[in-house]
Amino acid sequence: MMRVDVLDSLKRLNNLSSSYSLPRVSFYAEDCCGRQGSSFFFVSWHILMASLGDIGVSAAINILSAFAFLLAFAILRIQPINDRVYFPKWYLKGLRSSPLQAGLFVSKFVNLDFRSYIRFLSWMPAALQMPELELIDHAGLDSAVYLRIYLLGLKIFVPIAFLAFSVMVPVNWTNSTLERSNLTYSQIDKLSISNIPTGSNRFWTHLVMAYAFTFWTCYILKREYQIVATMRLHFLASEGRRPDQFTVLVRNVPPDPDESVSELVEHFFLVNHPDHYLTHQVVYNAKKLSSLVSKKKKRQNWLDYYELKYSRNQSTRPTKKTGFLGLWGNRVDAIDFYTDEIKRLTEEIELEKHKVMKNSKYTMPAAFVSFRTRWGAAVCAQTQQSRNPTVWLTEWAPEPRDVYWDNMAIPYVSLTIRKLIIAVAFFFLTFFFMIPIAFVQSLANIEGIEKAAPFLKSFIEIKFIKSIIQGFLPGIALKIFLIFLPTILMIMSKFEGFISTSALERRAATRYYIFQFINVFLGSIITGTAFQQLDKFIHQSANEIPKTIGVSIPMKATFFITYIMVDGWAGCAGEILRLKPLIFYHLKNFFLVKTEKDREEAMDPGTFGFNTGEPQIQLYFLLGLVYAVVTPFLLPYIIVFFGFAYVVYRHQIINVYNQEYESAAAFWPDVHGRIIFALVISQLLLMGLLSTKEAANSTPLLITLPVLTISFHLYCKGRYEPAFVKHPLQEAMMKDTLERAREPNFNLKEFLQSAYVHPVFKGEDDSESDVMSEKWEEQEPVLVQTKRQSRKNTPLPSKHSGSLSS
Amino acid sequence: MMRVDVLDSLKRLNNLSSSYSLPRVSFYAEDCCGRQGSSFFFVSWHILMASLGDIGVSAAINILSAFAFLLAFAILRIQPINDRVYFPKWYLKGLRSSPLQAGLFVSKFVNLDFRSYIRFLSWMPAALQMPELELIDHAGLDSAVYLRIYLLGLKIFVPIAFLAFSVMVPVNWTNSTLERSNLTYSQIDKLSISNIPTGSNRFWTHLVMAYAFTFWTCYILKREYQIVATMRLHFLASEGRRPDQFTVLVRNVPPDPDESVSELVEHFFLVNHPDHYLTHQVVYNAKKLSSLVSKKKKRQNWLDYYELKYSRNQSTRPTKKTGFLGLWGNRVDAIDFYTDEIKRLTEEIELEKHKVMKNSKYTMPAAFVSFRTRWGAAVCAQTQQSRNPTVWLTEWAPEPRDVYWDNMAIPYVSLTIRKLIIAVAFFFLTFFFMIPIAFVQSLANIEGIEKAAPFLKSFIEIKFIKSIIQGFLPGIALKIFLIFLPTILMIMSKFEGFISTSALERRAATRYYIFQFINVFLGSIITGTAFQQLDKFIHQSANEIPKTIGVSIPMKATFFITYIMVDGWAGCAGEILRLKPLIFYHLKNFFLVKTEKDREEAMDPGTFGFNTGEPQIQLYFLLGLVYAVVTPFLLPYIIVFFGFAYVVYRHQIINVYNQEYESAAAFWPDVHGRIIFALVISQLLLMGLLSTKEAANSTPLLITLPVLTISFHLYCKGRYEPAFVKHPLQEAMMKDTLERAREPNFNLKEFLQSAYVHPVFKGEDDSESDVMSEKWEEQEPVLVQTKRQSRKNTPLPSKHSGSLSS
Repeated sequence: MMRVDVLDSLKRLNNLSSSYSLPRVSFYAEDCCGRQGSSFFFVSWHILMASLGDIGVSAAINILSAFAFLLAFAILRIQPINDRVYFPKWYLKGLRSSPLQAGLFVSKFVNLDFRSYIRFLSWMPAALQMPELELIDHAGLDSAVYLRIYLLGLKIFVPIAFLAFSVMVPVNWTNSTLERSNLTYSQIDKLSISNIPTGSNRFWTHLVMAYAFTFWTCYILKREYQIVATMRLHFLASEGRRPDQFTVLVRNVPPDPDESVSELVEHFFLVNHPDHYLTHQVVYNAKKLSSLVSKKKKRQNWLDYYELKYSRNQSTRPTKKTGFLGLWGNRVDAIDFYTDEIKRLTEEIELEKHKVMKNSKYTMPAAFVSFRTRWGAAVCAQTQQSRNPTVWLTEWAPEPRDVYWDNMAIPYVSLTIRKLIIAVAFFFLTFFFMIPIAFVQSLANIEGIEKAAPFLKSFIEIKFIKSIIQGFLPGIALKIFLIFLPTILMIMSKFEGFISTSALERRAATRYYIFQFINVFLGSIITGTAFQQLDKFIHQSANEIPKTIGVSIPMKATFFITYIMVDGWAGCAGEILRLKPLIFYHLKNFFLVKTEKDREEAMDPGTFGFNTGEPQIQLYFLLGLVYAVVTPFLLPYIIVFFGFAYVVYRHQIINVYNQEYESAAAFWPDVHGRIIFALVISQLLLMGLLSTKEAANSTPLLITLPVLTISFHLYCKGRYEPAFVKHPLQEAMMKDTLERAREPNFNLKEFLQSAYVHPVFKGEDDSESDVMSEKWEEQEPVLVQTKRQSRKNTPLPSKHSGSLSS
Repeated sequence: MMRVDVLDSLKRLNNLSSSYSLPRVSFYAEDCCGRQGSSFFFVSWHILMASLGDIGVSAAINILSAFAFLLAFAILRIQPINDRVYFPKWYLKGLRSSPLQAGLFVSKFVNLDFRSYIRFLSWMPAALQMPELELIDHAGLDSAVYLRIYLLGLKIFVPIAFLAFSVMVPVNWTNSTLERSNLTYSQIDKLSISNIPTGSNRFWTHLVMAYAFTFWTCYILKREYQIVATMRLHFLASEGRRPDQFTVLVRNVPPDPDESVSELVEHFFLVNHPDHYLTHQVVYNAKKLSSLVSKKKKRQNWLDYYELKYSRNQSTRPTKKTGFLGLWGNRVDAIDFYTDEIKRLTEEIELEKHKVMKNSKYTMPAAFVSFRTRWGAAVCAQTQQSRNPTVWLTEWAPEPRDVYWDNMAIPYVSLTIRKLIIAVAFFFLTFFFMIPIAFVQSLANIEGIEKAAPFLKSFIEIKFIKSIIQGFLPGIALKIFLIFLPTILMIMSKFEGFISTSALERRAATRYYIFQFINVFLGSIITGTAFQQLDKFIHQSANEIPKTIGVSIPMKATFFITYIMVDGWAGCAGEILRLKPLIFYHLKNFFLVKTEKDREEAMDPGTFGFNTGEPQIQLYFLLGLVYAVVTPFLLPYIIVFFGFAYVVYRHQIINVYNQEYESAAAFWPDVHGRIIFALVISQLLLMGLLSTKEAANSTPLLITLPVLTISFHLYCKGRYEPAFVKHPLQEAMMKDTLERAREPNFNLKEFLQSAYVHPVFKGEDDSESDVMSEKWEEQEPVLVQTKRQSRKNTPLPSKHSGSLSS
């Protein structure tokens, strides 16, 4: 969200600069093909095609803005007052409790040590210093492996760029096709495949290079898959005891007239896993309860705010109006009002809690079933339980903090229908999203505003303001849509019924990538909306499609170079500045923060955002692989992006982000699959391009490439994917045996008792505290002990576990 | 094999008749489209397009030939001498030991009871009488469910035909588009969609019908899937104790420098399945051994033959030449020669057996691991064992008789490569199989023969013979290819590495279906070789392809009607006659049969041949669904086929076929999937057809259909497929508990000891006996006892199981 936001304003900025200050150069592509950049929708994406000079100007602007961001970051980060914005991770880990300097009062807010301003890029080497093992320990495997994606980019593209510049660029350069033609061309095009005459034997170079690049990419991919798989297995093996290692999620427990869900689950597993079943935890429908809890929390916030206000100024007690947003209604004493409200809500919560526990219709037909051994859990998670494959569905339980509680109770038939609905909805979203936006755009024009608000007319009519509005307005609906797109995709995934946040994010990432591929990549190459493309493709023959795209590719190189600089370079620099969290933190700090704990909550470290971040990286992989053979000049820009982003994100992961879950790099098969997809696309487009260049005798050789690539993918899938999906019994047995030898008297049942209780049931004694963060710590066995004791009076554990003597 | 053979000669017959006796009618399709039936390759498939009269003639010919077959069958089957050809199943089951009649010597060979000739169709009701449960008991679930495919055809198409004839035919008939046009047309076309004027609102009828047909088909499919799944589960649940219920096949056992495969397997499973592991059986590479055994068996056959000859005529001892095929070399006494040979081979076999057992390089890295309980086996089969997913691969063991021994030792990497090779090979086989055949055809013409064998010239030049040769020769290479196609596909599947015969057959069936779809269905609609089609499709846009095919469909209705009659009707009648087994049986009976056991071996009951039979049925499903909306006139022919074939195959399954394995209807997901595929194809083609008829506003409604159909398929897949793939623990536990209660002291280890021993090791004491058939009986616990005792002296069981005390 945050990144998209910053990026977007950057893009807007850049657009303005390119349309107002840069000379508009009509690119030869438009002339020679007679095509017009027809879609006004994509004006905002399409920074004008530029010559080498324009790229220089654009690069200068982007480098300068990136530099400005970095400078701002360098200054802001060493101010003690911002310490919690730029180093929240350390605070959350409890390794840092206050800004490092001590001394003067002023120096609590502003850094007066001028030496530190000189070393303003010192964070970069610092970010690179932490070794990977320590990084895994510090931020989790997900983060460490996420960083490897950037490294993978470097590993793939640095040798490719080296080879391309030493072999292909000379081959391309020493032609004079473009010079002899009467087309407008830039120096970049002289470096590209466009400069090779039709039917030339020199295309063999490109063919050989395509093979070399493919083999290199596959080699690196295989190596990386192996490393990541080993890392994952090692990580899982070296982890301490965790509830999810012993627990399986059972869904679609069939209804039974005689037994409650809890009894049914217990009986079923006692019968079918007699030697292994230990205990279970039924899932409750606590939607209303959690909304009450969060309501109470909000009220508590306001109460804190007013109490703080009162404590600062004791002369007048603060008041508020009871109506909507505090705008009207009776004026009452704010502190009393909120105290009453909180009291009322607390009672309501207690009532609701009681209801949820007692009333069987609040019990969902799902349960977390825990086993005596990891072996037992691994067996149960991987096997089918019942004759009817739609009931007693078992799967490995996600980490407790990774569970997405709302989706626990979706029945099987509904899942199929939901998938169908979302598939259709996503299709329409991808191909027809422009229709409502165009409709809004048609409303939101200057005339419309003047009509709706005549008093603004004279203001609007000022030429400068008018041109700005005219520049911004058409794009504004699109931009708002693009800002909300990741959220929309997350909602879609939630609707589809995934039960863990990590799975939700992975699915949203896949969708975001498809959207970007169609609307950014293809949309920029074949100008036109996605729907127009679809229409074009349906009416074109199968071998024409790669040709159409392939021919346009060399012409769009300059556009994509600019795109990389805006979205990649400046975007990264924007990411590190954390403008939004910075502002929000200071606002919250000023208005709400009362205790140290409040301040901690105000930090909002965020996560690295797999669902938006990874598809962005993948777009660069796609661009790099597609242009590697066609226009190698693009590669250095991508390499700079990967290098810069690696440093930036490494810094952020070390100092800022606080990952919400740990999936142990479960996303790697997706990452691998998308790079393979990009590779196949690049091969098909090269085939299309070469066939128009009358190097058609190369076709059989080029067809072989995707076939080989896909079977390489299948091989990798079979070889490494199980490490990310399945749970080897050997490992489980090893850990079980080891642990039994080490701690023969460990009380596993106590350890697992409350691990999978819905978060709202956990925060009962201290509902003001951060329910989430507390839940994590509880994974330490010691903490669980205390937890359990504080719970002994509640009906929950005694009801559901008393019957079992373990 | 057999069926293809008969079919093929039938087709040849029919071709001749149609090209020599039927009037050649140039069909309007050729005129209006200006297309020429260019491919001479498909002449043999393309019985000429015919009018209603022609269809009548063709129908008459086919009905007559079918009738002739049936008559021949009716007469032959009641001759006592043929009893073993037409009722082998009963002999194999031991329920019939000699022809039913007794009395005169002559009546042992010829049926003299003339009353029985009158009731010559009495087998039909007899075939229908046996209830399904008894049929499952008699012939296995595979056969019973296979018959349900024919019934499914009736269930789908009878109501569809009824609806089509009552609604669509009147709507089609009451137009005069064809009459007013100056095209040649037949009465059939007046019943088809061709008779509706372009852009007419009457197409709404077809649209509604398409929906109705789809819903009906899906409804029946779902119901049938449910029934078959239940049948399978019930069958598996009610089965007695069988070795494969307790056994898992482990492949890719990693090499270990210190331990043998056997030790390694034992240790691994003792560690990782400590409570469940019972015993195991290593797989040996016995290729050479089994070739020796079969060589010995052949020699034995010859010895028997000569001994029989000698016993009939004691005056001269038979002699033979030792050279190639007995054509040259020294003449020796045949009985002595073969006795010596057999003695030599017996020694060689003993030596080889010893070598296989002792030498570790004959041990394959695979083993059958047996567990104490079904639960333990189900767990092991469904879970991943090792961290490395390419070693210790476990899967449910096939039935002992279903095991394909040669593929046990293929390493993981090789499997991927083999799959790739076969995928590419199958692609070329499907699309380019005509090239070598055309080459052979170009050689095998009249001139070529005259050149090669000038002495035949005068004979060939006779006009009648010349025309026959010219008629047959071009097709002969194609026919030989088509006869061998199922064998080729089986070899492909074997190469791919499947480890059970049932899986081999299923894969071969899939490939055969694809081949038929492309080369028979599409090949007949768009005349031209598959490669020409491919080329056409690549150069056509995606929405043009269904149009091209859709437009041709109504024109080919008459061709397909003829096809159904030749391939379906007459083919079925040919199947029941069993000409090839009849001839072979009598030949063997005359030359080789000495004992009752030899006679049993000579019977060759065959199987219903899933790999050739099912794709043939599927072609009729495809034709029925495609033509249901377009030319309903075709439906009755399909219904007759399904009905007739049902009766014929039910008779054959009851009386003839002896299934080699029992997969418990594991093929049903394939059957279901292919019907869904046919449904989607029919919907796409209708869409193409209607869009050319300018009923384009129907497109959105028609696009919805495949989307719905595919999501229905996904639903069914999720809902029912696990019943065919997975092994519910609940069931396993239930059977385990039951059995433990019933027979607490059963010695399971003894029972499993030799179940998965390679067949060549089993027949040691009586290598002349039928190794296979004996193996089955051994599944009865009592028989195993004896087996085991006869084996106590061999090193095998003592070596591999002694170390384990269970």
